[in-house]
Amino acid sequence: MPIVALDLLGGDGAPDVVADAAASLLREQEPISLILVGPEEQARDLLAARGLTGGRLAGGDPTGGPLSGGPLSGGCIALAHASRAVRMDEDPLRVLREDADASVSVAARLVAKGSADAWVSVGHTGAAVAAAVLELGRIPGMSRPALAVVVPGVAGRVVLLDAGAAPDATPDLLRQFAMVGHAYAEGLGAVDPAVGLLTIGSEDGKGDLLRRSAHELLRDSLIAAGIRYAGPVEGHDVALGERAQVIVTDGFTGNVVLKALEGAVQWAAVRMGAAYGDIGPARGVVRETATSEFAGGMLLGVQGVTVIGHGAGSAEEIAACVRLAARAADAGLARRTSEALAGGRS
Amino acid sequence: MPIVALDLLGGDGAPDVVADAAASLLREQEPISLILVGPEEQARDLLAARGLTGGRLAGGDPTGGPLSGGPLSGGCIALAHASRAVRMDEDPLRVLREDADASVSVAARLVAKGSADAWVSVGHTGAAVAAAVLELGRIPGMSRPALAVVVPGVAGRVVLLDAGAAPDATPDLLRQFAMVGHAYAEGLGAVDPAVGLLTIGSEDGKGDLLRRSAHELLRDSLIAAGIRYAGPVEGHDVALGERAQVIVTDGFTGNVVLKALEGAVQWAAVRMGAAYGDIGPARGVVRETATSEFAGGMLLGVQGVTVIGHGAGSAEEIAACVRLAARAADAGLARRTSEALAGGRS
Repeated sequence: MPIVALDLLGGDGAPDVVADAAASLLREQEPISLILVGPEEQARDLLAARGLTGGRLAGGDPTGGPLSGGPLSGGCIALAHASRAVRMDEDPLRVLREDADASVSVAARLVAKGSADAWVSVGHTGAAVAAAVLELGRIPGMSRPALAVVVPGVAGRVVLLDAGAAPDATPDLLRQFAMVGHAYAEGLGAVDPAVGLLTIGSEDGKGDLLRRSAHELLRDSLIAAGIRYAGPVEGHDVALGERAQVIVTDGFTGNVVLKALEGAVQWAAVRMGAAYGDIGPARGVVRETATSEFAGGMLLGVQGVTVIGHGAGSAEEIAACVRLAARAADAGLARRTSEALAGGRS
Repeated sequence: MPIVALDLLGGDGAPDVVADAAASLLREQEPISLILVGPEEQARDLLAARGLTGGRLAGGDPTGGPLSGGPLSGGCIALAHASRAVRMDEDPLRVLREDADASVSVAARLVAKGSADAWVSVGHTGAAVAAAVLELGRIPGMSRPALAVVVPGVAGRVVLLDAGAAPDATPDLLRQFAMVGHAYAEGLGAVDPAVGLLTIGSEDGKGDLLRRSAHELLRDSLIAAGIRYAGPVEGHDVALGERAQVIVTDGFTGNVVLKALEGAVQWAAVRMGAAYGDIGPARGVVRETATSEFAGGMLLGVQGVTVIGHGAGSAEEIAACVRLAARAADAGLARRTSEALAGGRS
């Protein structure tokens, strides 16, 4: 049973919404053990208010030596102390350097030390990415990690990356994203997924400077690695999912697209709900999507399973992130992406 | 009554679908006169097959001297000869330099010479932009024109620009887009519209290098021009429309976002249609959106009204582009944007 460390302090509704997510996962007896990472007294109170108890992780200070044993067993919850969150208006690198006990650092460190198999935060994305890099380390051959989200496209799942970890990219970084994104899609069960480069216009040579430089490198690297290259794809291909099962872009574009899709789906619920005279079923579609794999971004390119969810996520969405993390840990995702990158290097 | 020149040869379904659009506009007796721009014999045959006739523009060769008079009168159609389209796989600048009679050049030239008040193409976007710049000229203070689309947001209309004319942008170009986009929104009837900078994360200082450089310039320039600056906005704000009525971005991001929205709306129709057990009303919403103002992009920053529509657009969508062009000509759009940029220059 995978052990997932959950950042109690991340997200707009933290810590209450995160505690709600933990409680619902435990009540539903999902085959996941949880380590709740946050101020110990507060965590204990939040659990008590939900009729739960949690034991402190054995091994004492989770920021220190290796942790082992502890009270974890099927569906159990443990606590690991952390002092503070990284606020949205703070520079994450500065905070993480100054305070070793920030919740994202403690959570990532639990994975680095082997006390947890995966970790989840729905807080400050930049802070979670920085903590993952600092505590877990990048996998060899990966310059910067990428956040991969799974979009439930009309024709099937689409892995879109980077969704916001690296706002500025280079052609070689896009090549790395293609390799790890392909491995992730395979890990999720896709058979021979094709990789597309998100651009404007589907002809070769279209796009901005970055895309025009990246196209040939991507094509040659993917062909050399035995991966299908779908070539240039466009914005609509993200939600349609016909032309590529992995779509590669820089973190700025990916984040804007992901949020644009969310806005469009809300728009559609309002307009289509009105057209049918009942918004209920349309809202159901929005909710179902938000609480599927789509809920969380998987950080690819670090040595451990890291899931980063929406700051505004509900308890249901946070629980979906934890399930995604557990599944990825079971599937040996970190090892799989490392191998992909090693195999795909020219 | 505005006179709109329509590129018969542009678009995936050209020339038949364009001829269908012209026929439907004339049959519905809209207060628009049309000049159909394409090979004269072919145009005559297409009109005849639809039970229509068209007169050749008086003044002879439309590529030559000024055209005036002619057979135009309420709801009438005239023909202006053009030799060829710019194909999607061609370099538009090379074609336009080598052949003065490409349909986009002839159509734009009709506006430059005063024979038409606006022109429309649903063909090669790059070719239409190049023809507009070469034939009409840029307005003073505008480095590159921007394609502005109107997104029917939940809270009201949102003008999104650039949707694909300038894939690579600078901070100063984004400032120019903000000025002309604001003028366009006002021309469409928005009262004191706020301008937002599309980025990731809504805190100041977030985003990629371009956005981080552009934020202060945009803020200072807009404040100096008496325009409200909504600050950084995110992808979901495009379809929601609460935080800004004008959203500024580079042409790469804008085009990807616009197409992502289109894909998401199609996705929603499939999923929500299934949830209601009847896809009909959902498809109706998609169709209504595609044939509204959303159908066409307005090219801002050139000295004449230029509308560029989807290559895959239906006759209904092309007709919507023509209506948009006619309305913009009536509203004196080109003059209005020129004044905005002149007034907004620091």
